[in-house]
Amino acid sequence: MKYEEQTIEGRNAVLEAFRSGKTIDKLYVLKGCQDGPVNSILREARKRGTIVSFVTKERLDQMSETKKHQGVIAHGAVYAYAEVEDMLKLAEEKGESPFLFLLDNIEDPHNLGAIIRTANLAGAHGVIIPKRRAVGLTATVAKASAGAINYTPVAKVTNLGATIEELKERGLWFVCADMDGTVMYEVDLRGPIGLVIGNEGEGVSRLVREKCDYAASIPVKGEIDSLNASVAAGVLAYEIVRQRMG
Amino acid sequence: MKYEEQTIEGRNAVLEAFRSGKTIDKLYVLKGCQDGPVNSILREARKRGTIVSFVTKERLDQMSETKKHQGVIAHGAVYAYAEVEDMLKLAEEKGESPFLFLLDNIEDPHNLGAIIRTANLAGAHGVIIPKRRAVGLTATVAKASAGAINYTPVAKVTNLGATIEELKERGLWFVCADMDGTVMYEVDLRGPIGLVIGNEGEGVSRLVREKCDYAASIPVKGEIDSLNASVAAGVLAYEIVRQRMG
Repeated sequence: MKYEEQTIEGRNAVLEAFRSGKTIDKLYVLKGCQDGPVNSILREARKRGTIVSFVTKERLDQMSETKKHQGVIAHGAVYAYAEVEDMLKLAEEKGESPFLFLLDNIEDPHNLGAIIRTANLAGAHGVIIPKRRAVGLTATVAKASAGAINYTPVAKVTNLGATIEELKERGLWFVCADMDGTVMYEVDLRGPIGLVIGNEGEGVSRLVREKCDYAASIPVKGEIDSLNASVAAGVLAYEIVRQRMG
Repeated sequence: MKYEEQTIEGRNAVLEAFRSGKTIDKLYVLKGCQDGPVNSILREARKRGTIVSFVTKERLDQMSETKKHQGVIAHGAVYAYAEVEDMLKLAEEKGESPFLFLLDNIEDPHNLGAIIRTANLAGAHGVIIPKRRAVGLTATVAKASAGAINYTPVAKVTNLGATIEELKERGLWFVCADMDGTVMYEVDLRGPIGLVIGNEGEGVSRLVREKCDYAASIPVKGEIDSLNASVAAGVLAYEIVRQRMG
C-alpha cells in the first residue's frame, strides 16, 4: 500500500487528525506552550505514542507551509486505499483463485492490523472493510500489521452486502465465520472465495450473513464464548489454505 | 483461576506493584498531593488505565489497614497460578490426552491473554509460562483472555526446558512453532502433546527448541516475516484440534 507524507498545521486540524485516527508520526509543539487546546493535543499524542518535540518559534516558522501553525505542526502518513478490482487483478496476475477477506466492522486497530498481517501470509489478495463504523488504516493498524499494510491491498466500500453481490457475479463464493455454522472442516473452502469475519462483540451482521453462501464454525470446547477476532480470522484463513493445498 | 482481593499501601509498595505488572483495579491518592513519587505512581496508573480517585486524608485513614499509607492506597487482584500437575489431573478427569501450551517468553499482555483464550476454546488443559522475562497475569492479560483466565490453569515455571523434560517422562510429546520446521499438516500432532510458542520477536529459544520432538511450521506466502504470536498459536492449536478430531 502506498502512502504519502502529510503535514498538518494548526490546533484544530491536528487535534482532529488525532481524533479521526490519522497516522501521526511526529508532533512539533512550541516550547513553553501549555494552554488548554495544546494540552488536549499532547494528551492525544501521548495516548497514541506519537513522538513529541518541543521546538522554538523560529523552527516552527521554518517548517510551516501555511505560516498559520498556531504553535503546532504534525507530520503523518496517509495510507491510500485500493480498489476491489485491484485485488481481482492481483489474483489473476498470480494465476490464483481470488481469496479475499471481508471484515464486517472490526473495531480494534490491533485486530485489523493482525488480520491484514494474516491475509498477507495466508496468500490472500486483499482485505475489504466498510466505510462506516469500522476502524480505518491508522498508525496503530499499520504497526500491528507488521508492514503487511504495504503489500496487501485494503479497500473501503460503502456497503459490504452490495460488494458481496458484485463479487458473486465475478465467480466468488462467500463463507462467514458463525458459531452456529457447519464445522469448517466439513465446508468445501476451495475455489474463488471471500472470508467474512464479524465484529468483535456481535459477529457478522444479519444482512451480511444472509448474503453468504456458507456459514462455517470453528469447533470450540471450553467455558468462554469465542476466540479473539484476529485469532478466529487466522484459524479460518488457514483452513482455507489447507484445503487449497490439498 | 482463583484470585484474591488485595490492598497495597504506601508509595514504594504501590509503585512496585505497578512496575511488576500486578493487577491494580483502583488507586486512591490523597487530594492535592503532587510530589515526585506520587506523580510517578499516577503516570504508571495512567499507562495501565487504572481508575484513580483523589480522596481526603480522612477517607484514606479509614481505608488503611497498615495506617502507613503515605497518601496512596491501591486495590488489586492477585491471580493464583496453578501447578503443572493440576493440568495433567484435569486431562485425566476429562479422559483426554494432555494438551498443554508452553509459551517461551511472550512479552505482550494482549498476546498472552488471547493465547489463554485460545487454549480454553481449543480444549487445552493449561498454559505454562516461564518465571523470568515473560509477562505475568496482569489486569490486561485477564481482560484480553475474555475470562478464560478464570477457567484455564496457568502455571509459572523456573525453567521451561526442565519442565519439558519432566513432562516427556509423563508421556507428552513436544512440538514447537518454527518457520524452518516441517509443514504442520505433515506432522502427527495426535496424542499427549505440548505446543511450544516462541517470543514475538525471536521465536522459540535454542535451548527450548532442542528439547522439542518436532518443529512444525505454518505455511506462509506473502511478503512479511511472520504471523502475530497469538494468531500463530491459534492456527497451530487448531491443527492439533483437527488431527485430534479426525
